[in-house]
Amino acid sequence: MEEIISSMSNAQVKRLKELLTKTRARKKQGCFVAEGLRMVRETPADRLESLFISESFGRQAREAGLDLSRARILSDAVFKSVSETQTPQGIMAIVRQQSADLSDLLAAKAPLLLFLENIQDPGNLGTMMRTAEGAGVTGVIMSRDTVDIYNPKTIRSTMGSLYRMPFVYVDDLCQALLQAEKAKIHVFAAHLQGSVCYTDRNYRGASGLLIGNEGNGLTTAAAACACANIRIPMAGQVESLNAAAAAAILMYEAARQRGFAAADWTE
Amino acid sequence: MEEIISSMSNAQVKRLKELLTKTRARKKQGCFVAEGLRMVRETPADRLESLFISESFGRQAREAGLDLSRARILSDAVFKSVSETQTPQGIMAIVRQQSADLSDLLAAKAPLLLFLENIQDPGNLGTMMRTAEGAGVTGVIMSRDTVDIYNPKTIRSTMGSLYRMPFVYVDDLCQALLQAEKAKIHVFAAHLQGSVCYTDRNYRGASGLLIGNEGNGLTTAAAACACANIRIPMAGQVESLNAAAAAAILMYEAARQRGFAAADWTE
Repeated sequence: MEEIISSMSNAQVKRLKELLTKTRARKKQGCFVAEGLRMVRETPADRLESLFISESFGRQAREAGLDLSRARILSDAVFKSVSETQTPQGIMAIVRQQSADLSDLLAAKAPLLLFLENIQDPGNLGTMMRTAEGAGVTGVIMSRDTVDIYNPKTIRSTMGSLYRMPFVYVDDLCQALLQAEKAKIHVFAAHLQGSVCYTDRNYRGASGLLIGNEGNGLTTAAAACACANIRIPMAGQVESLNAAAAAAILMYEAARQRGFAAADWTE
Repeated sequence: MEEIISSMSNAQVKRLKELLTKTRARKKQGCFVAEGLRMVRETPADRLESLFISESFGRQAREAGLDLSRARILSDAVFKSVSETQTPQGIMAIVRQQSADLSDLLAAKAPLLLFLENIQDPGNLGTMMRTAEGAGVTGVIMSRDTVDIYNPKTIRSTMGSLYRMPFVYVDDLCQALLQAEKAKIHVFAAHLQGSVCYTDRNYRGASGLLIGNEGNGLTTAAAACACANIRIPMAGQVESLNAAAAAAILMYEAARQRGFAAADWTE
């Protein structure tokens, strides 16, 4: 007979809650929580630290023949109370964080990098990761003050790209941009006052795209570290685009120019 | 001395709360609530029904010389409790809804229409409206089951495009698509199984783009009413893109092909 954890004061339950709600706890422990069957299934086995299921999920899962021998079981009430989703599927895992090396990202073949400065909306960051994978971006480099990628809302929005798109947080984004320049990567900064239309530049070579904060755009310092400031033309009275929409437009212009070579695409 | 409403059971406070939280109430009354200084400022005067400010906003506003002669004043506590935002600015308005006519949208010069089927995320819909204005889209046509555009979260995400981008909900989206076809508008449906890459089609003429539900994509019926199914190539293991990101990519490809003619753009 398996033990069912039915108390919110259980140490593991407390740890789950902490990892789900506190960036600091995630950073300190180097772990995060992946929720839902899809995210758990996509978790690389060597990074999975522990698995949790709800009592009722356990019944379904055994019927479906899933191996849950290592899973700990939470009562449905405890699971729901810990979960960050409104209708939890009943499965979550504690997973070890894994970051890429900046030097590896810069040394990639035909790099197409996404540089993010101080993105604050978790959904925007997740959507950017997902679109980046689709567009064939080879890595994402984020300023230290960008929202935590292991925020549950970001994880959900990535739809699994979290595990597939290499990324790294850097202490000094300007420094990273200068390293990119040294590595002969042309970085284009999306800027409302950019002098060049984004479609008038060539992204076929080693390229980077730099996107700034949702409300304030790029800092002058970061924009100055880019090779060129590009602008997305806007009709009407639009003052700026949503950051994830702007990133999508730029990344897919690069993908288009590259003939969608990264995509598994044959007409 | 002005009267300060300090009770949540005040009829006007109740009405505000209802209009902020209930789609049905908004539909029945043909009104919605615009929150924040920016949205209120952009509200066309002939559509503004009544104006509400918080007590402390009133003090600031008078110092700033704003005309608030018609405004009703809510106590800060009541205002905060009614508001849908975490840190309310202290100003909101009841505004009359205004919808475009489908026939006008179809008769526009060089139309670029966005057709939306059953979009459910309020933020996605708002972002699409904002991007649509930027891309020079001439109108947005939504299936009846699309989320309410007057949802506070959608309104916020539009960043004012709500007032500038003509839109209409239609009872029968397929019927609207067929009317578009009769009006010689080529509608392209974004479809995961589309046989043609989106960059291989021409959007310079009268065009429409059709985007489906976030989780389920387009219904077979809607996809069948389009002239062609187009696909956005995706690298990696991405199964689909976020609906607002996909819409942004397609709308801006159309804008690019049109030479950003709708945008106030000179290099």
